[in-house]
Amino acid sequence: MSITLQQAQQAIEAAIRQATQISTPMNIAIVDGGANLTAFVRMDGAWLGSVDIAQRKARTARYFDMPSGELGKLSQPGGSLYNIEHSNGGLITFPGGLPIKNEQGEIIGAIGVSGGSVDQDEAVAQAGVDALT
Amino acid sequence: MSITLQQAQQAIEAAIRQATQISTPMNIAIVDGGANLTAFVRMDGAWLGSVDIAQRKARTARYFDMPSGELGKLSQPGGSLYNIEHSNGGLITFPGGLPIKNEQGEIIGAIGVSGGSVDQDEAVAQAGVDALT
Amino acid sequence: MSITLQQAQQAIEAAIRQATQISTPMNIAIVDGGANLTAFVRMDGAWLGSVDIAQRKARTARYFDMPSGELGKLSQPGGSLYNIEHSNGGLITFPGGLPIKNEQGEIIGAIGVSGGSVDQDEAVAQAGVDALT
Amino acid sequence: MSITLQQAQQAIEAAIRQATQISTPMNIAIVDGGANLTAFVRMDGAWLGSVDIAQRKARTARYFDMPSGELGKLSQPGGSLYNIEHSNGGLITFPGGLPIKNEQGEIIGAIGVSGGSVDQDEAVAQAGVDALT
Repeated sequence: MSITLQQAQQAIEAAIRQATQISTPMNIAIVDGGANLTAFVRMDGAWLGSVDIAQRKARTARYFDMPSGELGKLSQPGGSLYNIEHSNGGLITFPGGLPIKNEQGEIIGAIGVSGGSVDQDEAVAQAGVDALT
Repeated sequence: MSITLQQAQQAIEAAIRQATQISTPMNIAIVDGGANLTAFVRMDGAWLGSVDIAQRKARTARYFDMPSGELGKLSQPGGSLYNIEHSNGGLITFPGGLPIKNEQGEIIGAIGVSGGSVDQDEAVAQAGVDALT
Repeated sequence: MSITLQQAQQAIEAAIRQATQISTPMNIAIVDGGANLTAFVRMDGAWLGSVDIAQRKARTARYFDMPSGELGKLSQPGGSLYNIEHSNGGLITFPGGLPIKNEQGEIIGAIGVSGGSVDQDEAVAQAGVDALT
Repeated sequence: MSITLQQAQQAIEAAIRQATQISTPMNIAIVDGGANLTAFVRMDGAWLGSVDIAQRKARTARYFDMPSGELGKLSQPGGSLYNIEHSNGGLITFPGGLPIKNEQGEIIGAIGVSGGSVDQDEAVAQAGVDALT
């Protein structure tokens, strides 16, 4: 099972609504079950550097089937996964990447959001996830 | 002047309509005036390898403000721009990338399409361009 | 549908038998439906440089759902896909990469083989494909 | 002396048995004496991001002829090898990579395992090592 473009667009629309509500333009990326890019939008005025970060957050969430921020808790100095960010061509391990599940609870892809504080990023990603569950 | 997300989505929708009409699922990328990704979609079943190519075609078209295929004519062995593909992290110089202009004729971004023959790719890219002019 | 490890190992065993029969040690890579590595072996004495090539051939075949060599016919100077090898972090477009289908004819991954002549590579890849159909 | 494919497969089989016993699908990579990939498997359902990490752990263990986790103790902030992860195209220095020795105690390669907690990863890697000694 992998996310369809229609599902990806549905998640992006929900994420955009949330981003608009908090007045923070975001970069939003969706990857499929194979961690390949399915859809992406940069809202007008969103940070240019977040184009790349949003995609890395989405891949990171699918690579390990967990929120990107969970990985970041373990990758700190002294942590069990210190410097895991050097793998896979560069991971982003702070919040804003979340796995996407279908109604049956199967992981079908992931969403990555970047453009505000990490709390804002994760809230917008969550809105995208919620649109499909 | 740079393309807005709304314009990018308008171009993508027109491109998807054209791709659907010729029954060829496509990857479609839009970059802005700074050659940064603005929007991307992979239609269900489109080639995975074209995720990357569509983006490179769009960047190539904006990097040089000409159709990607025009550059390809000059990059052949013996040509004046032989192997220009080695620059900018890797260009794609066959057809499917086109500059996007606004109604005043100013270049505001570019579109890159990949998923079929180069003729099909360029036709779908052209449909995206036409949606904004 | 994506290839399982058991299927991948079955394909690799068949490929090894064919490589042994022609006395040419090979590198053999299997990727899944998302173009991610599933299994790999380097037969004793196989070229070191082919570790990478076998994997690129497999990815190339899945990226475009066709034999890697078919792409190579189109990527020559003057061809419609000239220098497509610059995309996706580096493609290999000579023979030895083949899509893998299940019994229902669906593409579930790809195999890439490198270590001999391209004809030998493709014959060994074909043996791997045939093991699953 | 370098590991043979038969030895590598023996180590992988033992590692798979251990991973199966703890119900944690793993990515398992074997590199030879030259730190080149010899064999790799991704068990069904194992993390996609660990395809890369398992290989990096194996290389790291052979690059420095010590467990990857030993290096990680020295690469922390303030440590003598701080940020050594930036070398060699990206090292992984947490546990899960172990040198492989033959019966005479000579290092002939290394194994890298990724897919669970670092303790689980290292236990599975150890099972692979033990199969050859």
